[in-house]
Amino acid sequence: MSVQEIDPGRESDRICSFISRFVDGRRASGLALGLSGGLDSSVVAALAAKALGPERVHALILPERDSAKESVDDARSYAEHLGIHFRIQDLTPVLEELGCYESGASGIVRLGGASRAAVNVFPGLARKGFLANLSGGRGRRFQEFVAFYRIKHRLRMVAVYREAEEKNLAAASCANRTEYETGFFVRYGDDAGDIAPIKHLYKTQVFRLGRRLGVTDRILDKKPSPDLFAGMKDEEIIGMKYSELDSILWCRAQGFTDGEIETRTGSSRKSISYVKDIISLSSRFREPPADLME
Amino acid sequence: MSVQEIDPGRESDRICSFISRFVDGRRASGLALGLSGGLDSSVVAALAAKALGPERVHALILPERDSAKESVDDARSYAEHLGIHFRIQDLTPVLEELGCYESGASGIVRLGGASRAAVNVFPGLARKGFLANLSGGRGRRFQEFVAFYRIKHRLRMVAVYREAEEKNLAAASCANRTEYETGFFVRYGDDAGDIAPIKHLYKTQVFRLGRRLGVTDRILDKKPSPDLFAGMKDEEIIGMKYSELDSILWCRAQGFTDGEIETRTGSSRKSISYVKDIISLSSRFREPPADLME
Repeated sequence: MSVQEIDPGRESDRICSFISRFVDGRRASGLALGLSGGLDSSVVAALAAKALGPERVHALILPERDSAKESVDDARSYAEHLGIHFRIQDLTPVLEELGCYESGASGIVRLGGASRAAVNVFPGLARKGFLANLSGGRGRRFQEFVAFYRIKHRLRMVAVYREAEEKNLAAASCANRTEYETGFFVRYGDDAGDIAPIKHLYKTQVFRLGRRLGVTDRILDKKPSPDLFAGMKDEEIIGMKYSELDSILWCRAQGFTDGEIETRTGSSRKSISYVKDIISLSSRFREPPADLME
Repeated sequence: MSVQEIDPGRESDRICSFISRFVDGRRASGLALGLSGGLDSSVVAALAAKALGPERVHALILPERDSAKESVDDARSYAEHLGIHFRIQDLTPVLEELGCYESGASGIVRLGGASRAAVNVFPGLARKGFLANLSGGRGRRFQEFVAFYRIKHRLRMVAVYREAEEKNLAAASCANRTEYETGFFVRYGDDAGDIAPIKHLYKTQVFRLGRRLGVTDRILDKKPSPDLFAGMKDEEIIGMKYSELDSILWCRAQGFTDGEIETRTGSSRKSISYVKDIISLSSRFREPPADLME
């Protein structure tokens, strides 16, 4: 049993109509988004271009020192392919001024090398790392690394909002449902926006939608990556394939018991329980600031 | 009829207990906040120091080119007075790298000079400006100015979260209820945090609480200002005194009709209707990103 099939054509129409109603309701001139060269932002860009016309879509391509070299090229090619506006802004000097590379750099290098190899041999290590990431305090060195990569997502948000506010555009968040439910996002970073057009879709559904929308093979064939530090892919960081993760998430959303999920997905109890843990640990990233309002 | 009186002693105890329960529940080491030298952040710092002990409170003092010179001194003196940790980080070079001063600079200078004088003579101008600010598209020049000052608040948030994440601290938002309800805040800027200890209090209530907590006269006596560009004070930007604004907001929260509000507050129908407009226009800043989740 896998994630609910979507009808990509119908889904595309539904999201396009949602985007155009939202943008018009705001009396905004169009939509701004960060374009990474990856799947999610490409899909949002394609939907927005279809909904509003390419001339009302403004993409920011925001590389920095640790971005993969091909990301900018892929993002630019796809923006040109869609015919949307785009601007490339290198965030490296800004991150340098924030002292961002100083603190985390050594940790990053290690993670790109030895740790990555270790994670591939022992997937449990990745899960342990991701659980630590979600729970906060796990030693100064690890926390510095977490702070380091989160700044990058937040700065991208700052740049997208600036573009949006200068041009009276709505700002889009390209977060998807898998990321949102598992805490695989940065609070006040990639979850931030006026509209989140694909937040209701699991990653595997976004993929199907992307194929339907004609997102290029180059982008569809890439292993998803946050592109915040050298090398590591989403599935390596989370310690689970998207196909399995999405199936478990979808079954949970249907209200199936752990036993039913085991039967339907073929996943181990350990994996099912791990997904339960990351959902629970990440809930604090989905809550608004705690307050004493009555 | 004015804003509901609070019992500052009881309110202080209630917030302190809220802060310590929250920080302990998160297994965080303490609280991080941006300290501006103004009332709200001073009150939050005082409450946190009381709740957690000063050694668990980490203040970031984040001046930039356009901050008032005395702000840093006031923030530093007050941090020293409380005995909390503090670090001064000048955000000017970061904002320079973002090109922030280029676009808005001329608008800022004008606002500090001629426009400010005009606003003082014709308060309606201020209200018109604030309504335009909340509604988005009002011409490129104005929008550039809006984008310009909002970057500053968002960068402060980025810096506070970095400190919080590196040291496993909860991040505090120092926004108050008056700001929140009227849209006098920057989305994903000063409204962002893990905990918002004074979000349930109107500005005039925060003032009373500050007096009780022993916030220094120097800070209590200052005219509140966002300190994002030269000179202009909160009340000049909003076009209304906090005492009047809070009274109207409080009456609305009690469910009084416009007629009753007029009688109780002595405010004009025009002012009451203006407050209704800013609440309504700013609702979009309080909503989570629009999505198609069911």
